[in-house]
Amino acid sequence: MICHEKGVNTLIAQRKSVELDHFHVPWEKITMKMLSLPYRVGILGGGQLARMLALKAHQMGLEPHVLSLSHQDPAAQVTSWWSQGDPNVPLQAERFLSGVDVATFESEFYCAQSLSQAVEKTQVPLFPQPNVMATLQDRWPQKQLLDRYNISTSPYLSVQNRTELNSAHDTLGLPFVLKKRRFGYDGYGTLIIKDKDQFTELYQVFKEDDVGFIAEAFVPFERELALMMIRSRDKSFVSYPLVESYQQNSRCLWVKGPAQHPNFVPFKEKLQEMLESINYVGAIGIEMFDTGDRLLVNELAPRVHNSGHYTMDAMSEDQFSLHLKSILGLPLGDVHSLAPGFAMYNLLGSGQSDPQWTLPEAVYFHWYGKGENRDGRKMGHLNCLASTPDLALKRLTDARRLIQI
Amino acid sequence: MICHEKGVNTLIAQRKSVELDHFHVPWEKITMKMLSLPYRVGILGGGQLARMLALKAHQMGLEPHVLSLSHQDPAAQVTSWWSQGDPNVPLQAERFLSGVDVATFESEFYCAQSLSQAVEKTQVPLFPQPNVMATLQDRWPQKQLLDRYNISTSPYLSVQNRTELNSAHDTLGLPFVLKKRRFGYDGYGTLIIKDKDQFTELYQVFKEDDVGFIAEAFVPFERELALMMIRSRDKSFVSYPLVESYQQNSRCLWVKGPAQHPNFVPFKEKLQEMLESINYVGAIGIEMFDTGDRLLVNELAPRVHNSGHYTMDAMSEDQFSLHLKSILGLPLGDVHSLAPGFAMYNLLGSGQSDPQWTLPEAVYFHWYGKGENRDGRKMGHLNCLASTPDLALKRLTDARRLIQI
Repeated sequence: MICHEKGVNTLIAQRKSVELDHFHVPWEKITMKMLSLPYRVGILGGGQLARMLALKAHQMGLEPHVLSLSHQDPAAQVTSWWSQGDPNVPLQAERFLSGVDVATFESEFYCAQSLSQAVEKTQVPLFPQPNVMATLQDRWPQKQLLDRYNISTSPYLSVQNRTELNSAHDTLGLPFVLKKRRFGYDGYGTLIIKDKDQFTELYQVFKEDDVGFIAEAFVPFERELALMMIRSRDKSFVSYPLVESYQQNSRCLWVKGPAQHPNFVPFKEKLQEMLESINYVGAIGIEMFDTGDRLLVNELAPRVHNSGHYTMDAMSEDQFSLHLKSILGLPLGDVHSLAPGFAMYNLLGSGQSDPQWTLPEAVYFHWYGKGENRDGRKMGHLNCLASTPDLALKRLTDARRLIQI
Repeated sequence: MICHEKGVNTLIAQRKSVELDHFHVPWEKITMKMLSLPYRVGILGGGQLARMLALKAHQMGLEPHVLSLSHQDPAAQVTSWWSQGDPNVPLQAERFLSGVDVATFESEFYCAQSLSQAVEKTQVPLFPQPNVMATLQDRWPQKQLLDRYNISTSPYLSVQNRTELNSAHDTLGLPFVLKKRRFGYDGYGTLIIKDKDQFTELYQVFKEDDVGFIAEAFVPFERELALMMIRSRDKSFVSYPLVESYQQNSRCLWVKGPAQHPNFVPFKEKLQEMLESINYVGAIGIEMFDTGDRLLVNELAPRVHNSGHYTMDAMSEDQFSLHLKSILGLPLGDVHSLAPGFAMYNLLGSGQSDPQWTLPEAVYFHWYGKGENRDGRKMGHLNCLASTPDLALKRLTDARRLIQI
């Protein structure tokens, strides 16, 4: 055991050495994009992802302009450049865009067509691009995109009516998964049909819906994995480590990493190829199933992502910083992890009491400033570094007990 | 050289291992102070120190309330809880304090008496305490405090009139240093009298001033050093590494660390003893002269400090986070550095053009959002990690060229 620990430490030392060498940047060879200050970054949406983007933007010297419904929204609290409005109302989106230099969003479920028009009218770029948003906000073209680049995913069928629901049952067998094509997150809009009775019940109540559905084969997986990738307008590219994520009631409870999988490298290469082909710009969260020998993409989210929150403390540069650099067209450089193991633990609301919390030692605490403590709501998260992923996670489950939500 | 590098890496590996073990916190033995949300932290002042405190407060789930003169102030930009006002106007300070749960300040030069009264009336605690602020904002009682705890500093005399100016000349010899007792920073309010002619000129124009002066012996030093210490209301204590700082035109240009000095450990112990004796709460910046064999305190600043900005990226927890924890009475835990070498480089204004900047790779960029680019003004700073302090500094001097201010 002691020998093993020494082995790990030598490994860390070697890796650190390599990483520190990576810091030797050939400045003279780099053509840097220069930005004039002040530089205004528009963020559509006011939740925790927008908040963390805005906080990082302040640090980097960017002016974060936030468009959201309420001045009490998590992101509205952290900037003086907040505007009241709805990104889905074309005129409000347009007015907001006309006051910034570049824009991004925290949710892929805005009306892509309306945003596309606002971009065209104002000539203010929005990343990821509205057409990419349109493709990825809908599970049907998202699946087709994955197919086109030969990236494994679960078998699927479109379900618009009862006839197609029957076909899905016949083709995929039981259990299978029925998902709304759009607006699904954290398990909302997802139904697992486990047996004949459930299918009969569903068949009886099934109604056509203008959003539409997709049926997916149920994938028996060993664990869920996740990955953040970021691609800049200048074409530089960063892939964060593979991590394991654990969902409770379809909501992410924790993430630990780094994780390994024998097929990860070729899988990652195919994903990168896909992103390059569609000229993707920004951060993208990739959720995967590990079936043992295979990796399958479960979902793509074209934005900063909960599964990447560990990067705030565990990596040399976090997803929010790199996402902002990417939409500005700045080089992303290299990232490296700051410890051999790390973990993230979501602080989910109970809806039962006012939160009481303390700031545990050796644990990084992040809170979103949400007023209402609703059951299962993402209120904040904890990060931890340690010598192994499991030890980091163990500390977080211990520390979690110090916080009453 | 290779052997030496291996030695360094082994050292890092060993140190990392010890540090990771420190993460084993005996939760069951810790009585944690629980805080109810929302928890409002008042910050007096709106400059870059207030801004960095506010950004960290948001992350930690605290509501940063800022009192400053202009809504364009660096800290006013980063919170929706900004109030227009002057901390030196008693009624404005009182009204502000009555709306928060605990308060702190970014400058020790506010009227301590007025703040003391506001604290008494509102019963809202302010840290560091107003009486500590009063002692440390005036170089005369500050020197006397250092004397009381037998902490080396340069010989000094009070100078209120021409007779005392003559005594200073006779006692300290030439050159000597004349400083305003209060309101001095970045070289403002400091005069070095180098020769007889300068003394005669000074003698002729010397006028009594209600702030008063202090004369100090000129200390020929080899280098300047700096140190951040933080003490919590729960009495836990953290000392960051010793660092070297370099001043250009009396303004800090860079910091690199860690630095070594043979007398550092006993010196540090005396400083800690002093802070414990006066029940100090908060962060304190300690500027020192290294004369080769001796360490002398040059100045104490009872607040977060420019010489501690490297902690934002180079340490496991930064001065802003620990200062906030300290005024909340939370345990500070341990801190450790994330690389064997680190540096900080101030981005000082030239007053000549609109800033143009880029975000260099492998360098952490921090910007304060100041509207006006004045000559010598602190506009932002860069941090860097590397295998040695010198290498980190070298990278920053290179990266600095990419930023036009």
